[in-house]
Amino acid sequence: MNPGSTSVPVFPDTLRMAVRAPRPLIRPLVQRLHAYVPGEQPRIRGLIKLNTNENPYPPSPNGLAAVKAAVDGRLRLYPNPTASALREKLAKLHGCAPENIIVGNGSDELLALATRAFVEPSPKSKAQSPKPAVAMSTVQFFSPSYSLYPVLAEIAGARCNAVPLNADFSLPALAALPKRGWDFLAALSLITTPNAPSGRGYRTAELDALCAKSRGVVVLDEAYVDFARENAMTLALKHPHVLVSRTFSKAYSLCFQRIGYFVGHADLIAALDKVRDSYNVNGLGQIAALATLDDLPHYRRNFRRIIATRELVTAELTGLGWAVLPSQTNFLLVRPPVRLSAEEWLAKLRARKLLVRWFKHPEVRDYLRITIGSEAEMETFVPTVRRISAGK
Amino acid sequence: MNPGSTSVPVFPDTLRMAVRAPRPLIRPLVQRLHAYVPGEQPRIRGLIKLNTNENPYPPSPNGLAAVKAAVDGRLRLYPNPTASALREKLAKLHGCAPENIIVGNGSDELLALATRAFVEPSPKSKAQSPKPAVAMSTVQFFSPSYSLYPVLAEIAGARCNAVPLNADFSLPALAALPKRGWDFLAALSLITTPNAPSGRGYRTAELDALCAKSRGVVVLDEAYVDFARENAMTLALKHPHVLVSRTFSKAYSLCFQRIGYFVGHADLIAALDKVRDSYNVNGLGQIAALATLDDLPHYRRNFRRIIATRELVTAELTGLGWAVLPSQTNFLLVRPPVRLSAEEWLAKLRARKLLVRWFKHPEVRDYLRITIGSEAEMETFVPTVRRISAGK
Repeated sequence: MNPGSTSVPVFPDTLRMAVRAPRPLIRPLVQRLHAYVPGEQPRIRGLIKLNTNENPYPPSPNGLAAVKAAVDGRLRLYPNPTASALREKLAKLHGCAPENIIVGNGSDELLALATRAFVEPSPKSKAQSPKPAVAMSTVQFFSPSYSLYPVLAEIAGARCNAVPLNADFSLPALAALPKRGWDFLAALSLITTPNAPSGRGYRTAELDALCAKSRGVVVLDEAYVDFARENAMTLALKHPHVLVSRTFSKAYSLCFQRIGYFVGHADLIAALDKVRDSYNVNGLGQIAALATLDDLPHYRRNFRRIIATRELVTAELTGLGWAVLPSQTNFLLVRPPVRLSAEEWLAKLRARKLLVRWFKHPEVRDYLRITIGSEAEMETFVPTVRRISAGK
Repeated sequence: MNPGSTSVPVFPDTLRMAVRAPRPLIRPLVQRLHAYVPGEQPRIRGLIKLNTNENPYPPSPNGLAAVKAAVDGRLRLYPNPTASALREKLAKLHGCAPENIIVGNGSDELLALATRAFVEPSPKSKAQSPKPAVAMSTVQFFSPSYSLYPVLAEIAGARCNAVPLNADFSLPALAALPKRGWDFLAALSLITTPNAPSGRGYRTAELDALCAKSRGVVVLDEAYVDFARENAMTLALKHPHVLVSRTFSKAYSLCFQRIGYFVGHADLIAALDKVRDSYNVNGLGQIAALATLDDLPHYRRNFRRIIATRELVTAELTGLGWAVLPSQTNFLLVRPPVRLSAEEWLAKLRARKLLVRWFKHPEVRDYLRITIGSEAEMETFVPTVRRISAGK
């Protein structure tokens, strides 16, 4: 690498001046932004990591072997720019055409692309914007849900419409939605199903009715669907304005390699394709995902195992007086008994090398979100909870 | 994977209807977009691929070994979200702090982020936009240069200012720039240096003067700098509004894994950081880049070898009557003698399994761009050119 100057430079601290005159270098919208805060990724020896919903089990041996075998001179070449082999294989799996699929650098990238392809930046002056124009700039989602959504909306200069869920985190009835503030004209509605951080699953029939009434694009974000009873893929294959988002990260143990995809009408997919980076999906990730699709029975066994652990942990925590929401994901949203707050539990568990997730957001600040780890990890977790409960 | 419906769905072809009423699902700006067309990535046996400026040599053995060794259970985990180890190592190399560096999913992603962080979408009504507002929406570059730039500007809804280079593709004199239409107030100026597809290198002094006069952000895109005599890294470490872009793709044989980075003032880097996806850089790519930095002498030998081949091919083609532009990159821009057009040469070479690049753009349609392949590949290429010239 061509180092350029090798001495440590002293930066002239003149940027803030430059920001003022003659005009800001950085867009005011970006200056005001609060970036998304991902869960911690500490690498502490012996830490049991139950905070970012990763799969506790490794990828399949065949999958690992396929990736290892690809680490050779071909790394010098650009990867397939459209992930065409992967899209063909996914199309066969889902009963559609490759034109109905776009692959992203994780599904996060695709969610960002959706805001760019389907949502107009909000006009600055309210006077210029009658109702329909506002809806063209509206990104809508339920609250609480994936905390990335409002960040993506802000980056796109869109209007956020966060609509509260019922108190038990279930979906409001269709007829009640407008009163809650749901806008069926919104340019883009993002619905995590099963939802996070609640873990609740939604019925496909319920989502179908919601999609049918929507006039904008609806993304059904099924990051956790492999741990659920139902999936809504049929809706992407039925409604021309509905996209289903899937990822290899959580269920398929491939967070490291960033592979997600959307399924939907070819015209929507083509629009997303126009605004993506041309080589957005790294090559070893494409190879890992292809190998995964050859090994689905392995992963289905893995899902059943995680679901079984989830049900065991649910029973144990319930027995200890915790309120455990019914989960259709690989995590639990739980409210500890009153003696200690959720935030105190976070600290006490962390001190014992058990990392879970706590959100400051008022709707969920009384809860912890606990990723289902391996059987061995949860056999450490539950007794630790019991000891802390007993004041030990 | 949860396939959803297994029967092949018949898509209701109602999207175009939905696009009309009540309003388009897809933004008009996106409907009008022409996506960037990357060079072909065919996988044809025996093809000599001289069309996308990849390095002909594999990554270093140590680099490959490091990646192979990382293909294990850790693929289930999220990668480091800020590429912190890589940023620390790069900071040491360039004599700056990790806060002066952002790593991207290839430098293409970072170029796109720059349009999002520094450029306002162009206001629709010209009446609303006096001169300074226009400059805040201006993405500016020389022409011909990297053909991704106008695409990125269009996606951002920005105004493109493409300023012609001199006829020999050299940089116009600083004093002549305003007459050519260069706007020193432009929000974002993108300068490839050495340039593509010309291969010409620019003097750091010349770039320094241009940067000093600029009031917006200037990105010096040094994708090919390892094959050049000079680099302009000092300018990113001197001017608070200048970013230098580097990539591991071409010089470091890592196109497959998508790793690029920007160096610049911490405030600009922080702004880019706010608008990137939170896990934008895949894990094996981070590991590959880290290992590369441990093996720089290997790569420097590789650069010298490619430069030597470049000079040999330059001499050979010049001897055959081709006009060969002086190159400071790993490719040559060449104008064949008049008997056959560049487009005809493209076809004739392709028929002999030699793939080079031809651009339709009027400024370069008389030229071919030829990536410098391995010694063995160029020992096939040159005699093939000679045979075609002789009408064989």
